[in-house]
Amino acid sequence: MTTPQTDTAPTQGHAANKVLSVDAMGGDQGPATVVAGLSAFLSDEREARVILHGPKAELEPMLAKHRISDRVTIHDASDVVKMTDKPSHVLRNGKKTSMWSAIEAVRERQAAVAVSCGNTGGLMAMSMLRLRKAEGVNRPAIACLWPSRNPSGFNVMLDAGADIRADQDDLLTYALMGASYARNGLDIAQPRVGLLNVGTEEHKGRAELKVAHELIGNAAIIGDFEYVGFIEGGDLPSDKVDVIVTDGFTGNVALKTGEGTATLISELLRGALLKNPLSMFGALLARGSLGRLRKRIDPRRVNGGVFLGLNQTVIKSHGSADATGVAAALHLAYRLAQSGFSDKVAARVASAASLAQDAGTESETDGLNTNTGK
Amino acid sequence: MTTPQTDTAPTQGHAANKVLSVDAMGGDQGPATVVAGLSAFLSDEREARVILHGPKAELEPMLAKHRISDRVTIHDASDVVKMTDKPSHVLRNGKKTSMWSAIEAVRERQAAVAVSCGNTGGLMAMSMLRLRKAEGVNRPAIACLWPSRNPSGFNVMLDAGADIRADQDDLLTYALMGASYARNGLDIAQPRVGLLNVGTEEHKGRAELKVAHELIGNAAIIGDFEYVGFIEGGDLPSDKVDVIVTDGFTGNVALKTGEGTATLISELLRGALLKNPLSMFGALLARGSLGRLRKRIDPRRVNGGVFLGLNQTVIKSHGSADATGVAAALHLAYRLAQSGFSDKVAARVASAASLAQDAGTESETDGLNTNTGK
Repeated sequence: MTTPQTDTAPTQGHAANKVLSVDAMGGDQGPATVVAGLSAFLSDEREARVILHGPKAELEPMLAKHRISDRVTIHDASDVVKMTDKPSHVLRNGKKTSMWSAIEAVRERQAAVAVSCGNTGGLMAMSMLRLRKAEGVNRPAIACLWPSRNPSGFNVMLDAGADIRADQDDLLTYALMGASYARNGLDIAQPRVGLLNVGTEEHKGRAELKVAHELIGNAAIIGDFEYVGFIEGGDLPSDKVDVIVTDGFTGNVALKTGEGTATLISELLRGALLKNPLSMFGALLARGSLGRLRKRIDPRRVNGGVFLGLNQTVIKSHGSADATGVAAALHLAYRLAQSGFSDKVAARVASAASLAQDAGTESETDGLNTNTGK
Repeated sequence: MTTPQTDTAPTQGHAANKVLSVDAMGGDQGPATVVAGLSAFLSDEREARVILHGPKAELEPMLAKHRISDRVTIHDASDVVKMTDKPSHVLRNGKKTSMWSAIEAVRERQAAVAVSCGNTGGLMAMSMLRLRKAEGVNRPAIACLWPSRNPSGFNVMLDAGADIRADQDDLLTYALMGASYARNGLDIAQPRVGLLNVGTEEHKGRAELKVAHELIGNAAIIGDFEYVGFIEGGDLPSDKVDVIVTDGFTGNVALKTGEGTATLISELLRGALLKNPLSMFGALLARGSLGRLRKRIDPRRVNGGVFLGLNQTVIKSHGSADATGVAAALHLAYRLAQSGFSDKVAARVASAASLAQDAGTESETDGLNTNTGK
């Protein structure tokens, strides 16, 4: 069993903990954008090294141009996973792709964390096939960062859309994995975990949420987190909670709703300020403050969905990410790589799962029964 | 059967179509706020009349102060439904409450639409008991307005939280009711209806969504709407769609997430502009434009969740609504009252339900099977 201490203790400086595996291809902006983001990241992190996956002949001149050839090893891969490829197609025909190669490098422990801007479904399918689910995990999840009123500026929400279903046991696993991610990714010693529902009263919500409410409450000590109970959609950006647990359907809708609302307001704000000369002049005077605000809620700064529940960690960067977005995803990956996160989260979930098994398998049996379809 | 024409044709001017039934009690701000909102509404709508429910001795001086005594009839009711009362308690002990009295007035056709700021669960339970579900409706829904890029400034989303479950048949009913509401409440002759999902591809989403996708597509002609297919969370404020159909769990989370995001950004914007004297001066110059923006996204302007699927229409105003918010809910109620909306939506759903029955009851049997629990 992993004790709470080992989860926050610094790990020994394995060489691989300084190495990231990066898929150069598959993003909407092409490999030049990935390399530009890589260059920005490497100039901030002097000890970091990268394995870059894609067509060598195309990538070599880009690295030379940014003068980062000495810190980047290219793994030549001729094929690319397209945004429109279905997961099943990717699994059958993907062995020569840069995405496959990027995952192989973490599988073989040459690098600690893999990063790709490619197709989410394909990346998750390939990651599950090659890296396998960690012990005690039934459904892996995607964790995203949500701008919040907390000191770190962010909350963690999972599942953001890896699987449209989650039963009570999955939700418990998400709580454990999310708490470990908040500890290692956001540096919060004892994260506060909340379960997303339509009200905060105990009698509200779906049947599996009421059971998960009990399970997560009981796991707070093993998981070294504080359970704050049910929370509502309005609490997603709040400072009441650090980790928000929900199923991938609800999480995906909430994430896209939040992004859509933020985009609408930004557009309306820009439109309002450009409406007349007086407000344009006003905006000019306030531009320093408005710029800082824009940076605070910039979706590129929260770029990086982390796949949790596999034996290694994979980060999905937005397909449309620009160099700033790619660099943000790489910084997040490096932070997790250095903390030895993959091993810690696996140990945490495995220990909780084995304890739950010792305590009797009632809830797990329920879980299997509710897995049928709906 | 109701033809599409009758759904948009003006109804004959029954006296009751000019009368609203308003619960003066149960809001967080007390009856003085409701009466202030009522006064603002009545000065805009010269032909409107109101039946106001609550303790006569308390309300009479308020009406006199606003000089609206001649246009408001008080129905004396001594009890109040509290925000903390559970629906079961309200049903057992609520007969002398102002909320009960407000619903009775529409049940007896003295008024066309009822409005209350009280407890949502209690209001829905009482409305279902007294007004009964309309023919063809299994689960009533709450429709809310969402600020959008559309010319009207709003989209309709339902269910915003009346019921945490919805099967394929419920989702079809929501599409029919939502389209009728958009036609009568937002004046959109042929509303575009979308079904909320985690992606727009046909293979995505839960099983019941794939069936609902078929059902709603087939009902577009009867319902006199255009079906645009699956939409995502980011499309909620878009101009691709007028009516968004989803289950009450997802809808409630999305609604509160959108509100929470908008509130966070407003706070951050205010904070940014007050940060230094230069930006404060800038904000002063831009205040006209910023004020218009604030008004455009003001949640008080979209105040009013409409209960659909009952034999009469009930509007839930925010419990914390101020006079502006109450007036907004009353304006919406009056618009629906004048259009004869309650009868139109009931006729529309009943005709679709009977057509679906003629076409065979396969999907309805599926609906019953999926009603078990989860």
